[in-house]
Amino acid sequence: MKGLPLIQSLMFELKKLPGIGPRSAERLVQYFLKTEDLKSLSSILSNLNHKIKKCKECFSFTEEKDLCSFCEDDSRNKDLICVVEQAFDIFRIENCGIFKGYYHVLHGVLSPLNHIHPKDLTLKQLKERVLKKSFKEMILAIDSDLEGDTTALYIMESFKELDIKISRPALGIPLGSDLSFVDNKTLGQAIENRSYF
Amino acid sequence: MKGLPLIQSLMFELKKLPGIGPRSAERLVQYFLKTEDLKSLSSILSNLNHKIKKCKECFSFTEEKDLCSFCEDDSRNKDLICVVEQAFDIFRIENCGIFKGYYHVLHGVLSPLNHIHPKDLTLKQLKERVLKKSFKEMILAIDSDLEGDTTALYIMESFKELDIKISRPALGIPLGSDLSFVDNKTLGQAIENRSYF
Repeated sequence: MKGLPLIQSLMFELKKLPGIGPRSAERLVQYFLKTEDLKSLSSILSNLNHKIKKCKECFSFTEEKDLCSFCEDDSRNKDLICVVEQAFDIFRIENCGIFKGYYHVLHGVLSPLNHIHPKDLTLKQLKERVLKKSFKEMILAIDSDLEGDTTALYIMESFKELDIKISRPALGIPLGSDLSFVDNKTLGQAIENRSYF
Repeated sequence: MKGLPLIQSLMFELKKLPGIGPRSAERLVQYFLKTEDLKSLSSILSNLNHKIKKCKECFSFTEEKDLCSFCEDDSRNKDLICVVEQAFDIFRIENCGIFKGYYHVLHGVLSPLNHIHPKDLTLKQLKERVLKKSFKEMILAIDSDLEGDTTALYIMESFKELDIKISRPALGIPLGSDLSFVDNKTLGQAIENRSYF
């Protein structure tokens, strides 16, 4: 793009973004060029890194405070802690309206292939936190894929001498599903872990 | 997202972008939160609107200059002008390495359904430009869909008394295609407009 260094820089920056290829980047540039007010987006991005911090307790995100709104909330259920992979998972679980305990964000899962080891997650801090507080149960709301399972097993091993129950969300058939659309493995799990009435 | 107004604002701004739904917006926020340096992107966005202008001649984009790099280039073929829908189309045509004339950007196509009328495009300026200069041929590199065809017809009508040849890029089978993958209409056009050796 001869003679248009600013547009070229913008394309370059946009193409770095996850899920944004050359055509999407072009669409975004065309949109930005037609949009009057880019001050909001620009200012949010420039403030983001110094205003957003990690909660000192659960490692979720906070804006300029030491504790997030969940850790600050003394009225929540102090018996329960729910471990998640990413901060956004907290909001998904909260939105179910079922869980009233506290959270802990690992910021990833163990993955030797991707060079993610225990020290790269907040596992040490999780242990210190459980030793310090009086949680009765820890729910590992981690994806049930290879790396998630590995991480869950690591945690279970790491906490086995502690007096805390460890659980994981039930695997099974999604509500309202047609049995014929459920994959074999999930169906097998659902039969194996059937619930009684 | 309780207690996180900055992140909420960022999600809101991102979801406005074309091709960005809630899941993509979330991915982008997660990426931005992990990225150290957002100053480049932020500064480009805040500078974009006041640094990018439209070329006074062809209405392509320029950075703080009156004329774009093509219009400024006196060595180009003064007999040819190529009309395009959007500024990005110029770079696509240039990259073919075949066209050496000048360009003109309409910034859209006629579309009564979308309230885009002749006055919303740079048609008047195109006519003034052709009357002023000595172009021998005008290539309408406009999409061959309903609105593109309508726009091309409008231009042809509007210029019919002028001494300028009007052409459109050939419709036909893309190079290297398997005949069995070409749709009927395109194949029909290719047979009708066959070239001779």
